[in-house]
Amino acid sequence: MTMKPLPLAEVYRLIEPGPVALVTTARKGRANVMTMSWHMMVEFEPPLVACVLSEANYSFAALHATGECVIALPARKLAPKVVKVGNSSGRDVDKFATFGLTPLKAAGVKAPLVAECFANLECRVVDRRLVKAYNLFILEVVKAWVDPRQKNPKTIHHHGYGRFVADGRAFTLKSRMR
Amino acid sequence: MTMKPLPLAEVYRLIEPGPVALVTTARKGRANVMTMSWHMMVEFEPPLVACVLSEANYSFAALHATGECVIALPARKLAPKVVKVGNSSGRDVDKFATFGLTPLKAAGVKAPLVAECFANLECRVVDRRLVKAYNLFILEVVKAWVDPRQKNPKTIHHHGYGRFVADGRAFTLKSRMR
Repeated sequence: MTMKPLPLAEVYRLIEPGPVALVTTARKGRANVMTMSWHMMVEFEPPLVACVLSEANYSFAALHATGECVIALPARKLAPKVVKVGNSSGRDVDKFATFGLTPLKAAGVKAPLVAECFANLECRVVDRRLVKAYNLFILEVVKAWVDPRQKNPKTIHHHGYGRFVADGRAFTLKSRMR
Repeated sequence: MTMKPLPLAEVYRLIEPGPVALVTTARKGRANVMTMSWHMMVEFEPPLVACVLSEANYSFAALHATGECVIALPARKLAPKVVKVGNSSGRDVDKFATFGLTPLKAAGVKAPLVAECFANLECRVVDRRLVKAYNLFILEVVKAWVDPRQKNPKTIHHHGYGRFVADGRAFTLKSRMR
């Protein structure tokens, strides 16, 4: 395990910029992974994340049944695999094996980390009140990991229909905002 | 008015990538604007957007009372103004006048559009069930506008403490995903 823990108070800095994410689940001993871009921060600490998963996704049923998932953040170089993950279903294939992604055992949830991702967030469902209306889950991040070998990873952002924009230049402006 | 309407089915392509946004409100004849990065798509069409506004923000009370706002998307060049908007309160100043932003009359809500932004989304609150627990509003986008003079605008993404990343290179991968 080369991932190192990230303080939970820093998690929002990963999710707030809106990166395309992977979501893993595990149910009845079988792990799956999907692609997700509909997520946002809800609280700094403990970090709460809201996300929407289509109920047509195989992962939706797993998340609903187990109440656990991992949000894994892929850098630019993983984009081709991320799209393949998004265009296939865990009903039909073992996506980890098919697309060459490596599941790692998580500390506190059954869903696996993704070794190739630069960050992994172990999550538990804490609020289901908007699941029925919008497929919207509130998750608490209970453990966060980053890969120290991937420095300044560029994330990707989905603009629809396979069009993505990668992170460009970073800049800092004087701000009192957290 | 140089803004032109955008089909509502295309709105998700603006919000899904996770740009820093401005939110305008109007209450008792007074317009205000704040900076927001905690938002996500919830449904394609009609477009539903979830967002979290701190109840410490002056805009929170206005959104709660009026049930209306405009989400305006600034391009890279507006970043310095966006940070100033985020670091001040409508309790103390008229942010439009102070920071040189131009309010435009919206079609269906009292909150103003922001002329300098490349897109403006007129929104109504449609679900308040998670407001008490998380300050989380579900908004329906009832009218969308884009400025045709701003082509391929680069948005900005907040990584915390005034650190931002601007959009970099766009790329397309074959995908069946909307």
